[in-house]
Amino acid sequence: MNLPTVPPLSLTPFDFGAEPSGLLRVQLESRNYPICIGDLTFRDCLEVGQWGGELAVVVTNPLVDALYGDRLEEALLGRFKRVDRLLVRDGEQAKDWQTLQYLLSELAARGADRQTVLFALGGGVVGDITGFVAAIYMRGVRFVQVPTTLLAQVDSSVGGKNGINLPQGKNLVGTFYQPEAVWADISVLDSLSPREFAAGLAEVIKYGPIADPAFYAWLEQNIEALLRRDRKALTLAIRRACEIKAAVVGADEHESGVRAILNFGHTFGHALEAGLGYGQLLHGEAVGLGMLMAMELSVATVGLPAEEVPRLRELLQRAELPIKAPCLIRDDFLRLMQGDKKSAGGQIRYVLIPRVGQACVRYAPEDTAWIAISAHTA
Amino acid sequence: MNLPTVPPLSLTPFDFGAEPSGLLRVQLESRNYPICIGDLTFRDCLEVGQWGGELAVVVTNPLVDALYGDRLEEALLGRFKRVDRLLVRDGEQAKDWQTLQYLLSELAARGADRQTVLFALGGGVVGDITGFVAAIYMRGVRFVQVPTTLLAQVDSSVGGKNGINLPQGKNLVGTFYQPEAVWADISVLDSLSPREFAAGLAEVIKYGPIADPAFYAWLEQNIEALLRRDRKALTLAIRRACEIKAAVVGADEHESGVRAILNFGHTFGHALEAGLGYGQLLHGEAVGLGMLMAMELSVATVGLPAEEVPRLRELLQRAELPIKAPCLIRDDFLRLMQGDKKSAGGQIRYVLIPRVGQACVRYAPEDTAWIAISAHTA
Repeated sequence: MNLPTVPPLSLTPFDFGAEPSGLLRVQLESRNYPICIGDLTFRDCLEVGQWGGELAVVVTNPLVDALYGDRLEEALLGRFKRVDRLLVRDGEQAKDWQTLQYLLSELAARGADRQTVLFALGGGVVGDITGFVAAIYMRGVRFVQVPTTLLAQVDSSVGGKNGINLPQGKNLVGTFYQPEAVWADISVLDSLSPREFAAGLAEVIKYGPIADPAFYAWLEQNIEALLRRDRKALTLAIRRACEIKAAVVGADEHESGVRAILNFGHTFGHALEAGLGYGQLLHGEAVGLGMLMAMELSVATVGLPAEEVPRLRELLQRAELPIKAPCLIRDDFLRLMQGDKKSAGGQIRYVLIPRVGQACVRYAPEDTAWIAISAHTA
Repeated sequence: MNLPTVPPLSLTPFDFGAEPSGLLRVQLESRNYPICIGDLTFRDCLEVGQWGGELAVVVTNPLVDALYGDRLEEALLGRFKRVDRLLVRDGEQAKDWQTLQYLLSELAARGADRQTVLFALGGGVVGDITGFVAAIYMRGVRFVQVPTTLLAQVDSSVGGKNGINLPQGKNLVGTFYQPEAVWADISVLDSLSPREFAAGLAEVIKYGPIADPAFYAWLEQNIEALLRRDRKALTLAIRRACEIKAAVVGADEHESGVRAILNFGHTFGHALEAGLGYGQLLHGEAVGLGMLMAMELSVATVGLPAEEVPRLRELLQRAELPIKAPCLIRDDFLRLMQGDKKSAGGQIRYVLIPRVGQACVRYAPEDTAWIAISAHTA
């Protein structure tokens, strides 16, 4: 059984007293790119790196376009001769063949070439589909992630994973393809609904159990500040989440080993999303519930102290996240988990937590897994 | 004007007296993979590398399937528990969205996972679409090129380029993604029609002008032996073509510089194919004509001796390839060349030959280019 081992990450300790600074660099095998985080303008971001050319294409959805489309276009027009905008539908449903074909045909029709730069202005859906389009249009053009949700700022915009969904599962088609830069302007988070914002917090919380006990404790002390979108707390949290993600991705760009730990809660979470029909639960909400199930399974199988489950549940509750999944049917749910692409040769691999701050990947007996799942359903 | 410079390739001299041996290794930045060439069986090929697992999926077309499908399946069943076959239509038209969606959906429906290995059994079309599917299914699964045309054995199966066509142009969507191995069994070439075989020779001939005067002279002496598909001559020629291609690709996996020289004849050739409607001219036939045009333009602009044009024309004619393009309309043709994805920022970049064995990339005035094109049209 070839399961990844998780070596210690090369990660500087979390400095929660620090004045947050604006720039983080991600070093990957294939590229080194900047993540700009904080109270920034797009013009500030354009100062980092070399930008310019004939054509920039902003991919976004109508909602985000109305809020930030003009602001981004205006900034880009200082560097690009032409700025086009392409709109995709809102929501996970947009990650389909139709949107993919539409975007690629439009690029070709507008004369986009290998020098064209794409800008993914939006949440994870826009980032995933734009990253995929950038990876395959003319065998790869440059693109910039401009995440406008908390979830995208701390998770999907960093790391280079992209994709679309098939009826059989999420992200079954995609690539690993790194952006040229990530521009995470925290002021755009003000426009998120409370529910969307909370869903993003689930992915922030995730980094505690898998990699950083000090950050986890800090989150417990600062969850209310984060919920009221305090700028300093937010910048610190997003920066730390990105640091941890970058350290993990840098150690394993193509998800052959340690990167699997970022899927903590996701094997359960994806099955929840798929089983309920995409759109019932937000991705972050499903991941929050999945983390509870994974914690429960960790207590049963790898010796995590039992009190860690209520500890996480309390934090999720304070973050205004759901802590009970709807009623599930055992066989359907286990089959959905098996279909998840992280499973190898049919057996489900779980990301588990032997102690807070450390993750591992293990198989588990079906009955044991089902007991852990049932403990957190209605 | 940022045009690639072409440094000398690190290439051992062509040894035309050598007994051809069966294995060549390609060293690329991202991977080192074997090319098995010669009178081999699929079982011989399976001895090189580590093969096995739950599921192998052979992608092929009905014609090739009838000839070699059973033979490949039988060999693979010694290593894989299950071997599935997926058929795509014959011809360039198969490189479309419909085929891509069909293959990816079938993989998901059949439970293919990240351990599944794809086998591209066929010519360039099957190789291109299968390589693309392998690159994007679950963000990348392993695949093997099993080229059954001369064109695919000397060109498309080596180097990792893949893709599908859009109405706006060929290969506008795709990636760079390397196979695990290439299995070039020359005995399968016996089933090619004379026209298909000759079209493959055009891509063999290409390697002379761009990289190897000795090989070019050897081709002039051995073109008849190749046409009668003499095993020793064929193995030598395919091996040398793959050596040159591997040296070029190894120096530039992602086509940012020297790799452009492999497109010698292709800027004209792609425009010929697109202008006449795909299927009128075989790809190799179009490239042969394109090489004549590029040679003519090289005489006009970079000092190639004028006698090299009739020299190439004679060799193409002996190889039973067309040497006159159909009548073309200037503006349409130049626009088609401009649309080719190798052009940057609208200007057409030509691969030219200052002297046989050396290539460069240059812009050229439209009128000069058109005179070179017209010299080789009916």
